[in-house]
Amino acid sequence: MSQPIILYDIPRTGPVKALSGNMFKVRYTLAYKGLAFKSVWVESQDIEERMKAIGAKPTGLKPDGSDFYTLPVIQDPSTGAIVSDSFTIAEYLEETYPSTPTIFPHGSQALISTFDSTFMQGIRPMFPLVLTAVHARILPTNVPYFRQSTEMRVGMTLEEISPEGPKREQHWKNAKDFLGVIDGWYSKSDGERIMGDTFSYADIIVGGWIRCFSGLFEGEKWEEISTWHGGRWGRLLEEVNKYPILA
Amino acid sequence: MSQPIILYDIPRTGPVKALSGNMFKVRYTLAYKGLAFKSVWVESQDIEERMKAIGAKPTGLKPDGSDFYTLPVIQDPSTGAIVSDSFTIAEYLEETYPSTPTIFPHGSQALISTFDSTFMQGIRPMFPLVLTAVHARILPTNVPYFRQSTEMRVGMTLEEISPEGPKREQHWKNAKDFLGVIDGWYSKSDGERIMGDTFSYADIIVGGWIRCFSGLFEGEKWEEISTWHGGRWGRLLEEVNKYPILA
Repeated sequence: MSQPIILYDIPRTGPVKALSGNMFKVRYTLAYKGLAFKSVWVESQDIEERMKAIGAKPTGLKPDGSDFYTLPVIQDPSTGAIVSDSFTIAEYLEETYPSTPTIFPHGSQALISTFDSTFMQGIRPMFPLVLTAVHARILPTNVPYFRQSTEMRVGMTLEEISPEGPKREQHWKNAKDFLGVIDGWYSKSDGERIMGDTFSYADIIVGGWIRCFSGLFEGEKWEEISTWHGGRWGRLLEEVNKYPILA
Repeated sequence: MSQPIILYDIPRTGPVKALSGNMFKVRYTLAYKGLAFKSVWVESQDIEERMKAIGAKPTGLKPDGSDFYTLPVIQDPSTGAIVSDSFTIAEYLEETYPSTPTIFPHGSQALISTFDSTFMQGIRPMFPLVLTAVHARILPTNVPYFRQSTEMRVGMTLEEISPEGPKREQHWKNAKDFLGVIDGWYSKSDGERIMGDTFSYADIIVGGWIRCFSGLFEGEKWEEISTWHGGRWGRLLEEVNKYPILA
């Protein structure tokens, strides 16, 4: 029996620590493939130091040109591999564990890489809601760094990003519009999966983010979202939750 | 025997009138499916009037909020359908002629719709080269309208868009970079098609534009491009040209 894969993730308050859509994509991939894994929690102010220490690759550049480190990162004790970036992790797992269920059926890897880009672009208008909800849920020790780094990036205070009132209403309208676009993709596919009746990493991308939203917008708002578009998001969440994603 | 489908397209000078990448996508689709078609040539200043007259749908809005009409449009005498927009045409043909070879295999329609968006976004940095080459090739009667509408949209004269020298060199660098991204998609797919060994509309999108480039950049420059990335673009052009796309 191989040792569990380590998933580095950012913790939130409450009984369930997992929070981020991109980490849920990796959790869902690991669980769908039946690969054992365990979580190691790193607050965002510690990511750079911790990732440098284990030799993880940066995923981009800071405005000053120096390396920028983000999670998710996995560390696979069975191979020694350390892999950054959710899509690269999916490709690594698909290639390294070929006897597990495929997430790129019928040569779909290139197409799903463009689906991933389109999805991540489309979700941007929801980020004001996401950042506001994340701020309310991360650990108190994580808040000062989160405030400073987010406010520098977006050029306003956390409180100004999505204040209650017409601005937030507009953000919820954007959210419903984007979920409508995803619903349109499912309608095109003529089935309950993005690829018709065949499960793929495209469903993991959507499902991972839906799982994220159910936590970020927990309560009345999630109850409402889960009924949008014929109840698609409620059904998708049930599907995701069938897998042991919280290991 | 059903009557040939009519394809509305914009003509260029020279023995072969076809010019535009989006029209080549429709030509390639029709030819791949073995559907008979014939071209009807419309210069861009006449598109709005001609398309309104046949009852075609607009594909967008002008800055003043009025309807904007573009080609390709097809008119199918067998069904009476008139369909605008290359992707919508592909969906129409797939649905209406189910016994012809599929272009959306394995439930790939939704994924390929995102591939189409990513491709059309990625190609934008090549537009200065494309517009400059189109300008040199359209019919003299088409030039005044093309100049006026293009210059209004891009905010500079046609001669300023991609003048010979460092600016054009940069545009060619952008072109090579984008073709490198496409080459990366093919490498991911582990085959000569975007979906591995399976032909799909994703190959039609790439092949249609490659056929367009071979005409727009005919001569020495195309000779050079066809050798980039291990000769992939030369091979792709040969593949496209096996089909009777010029009907």
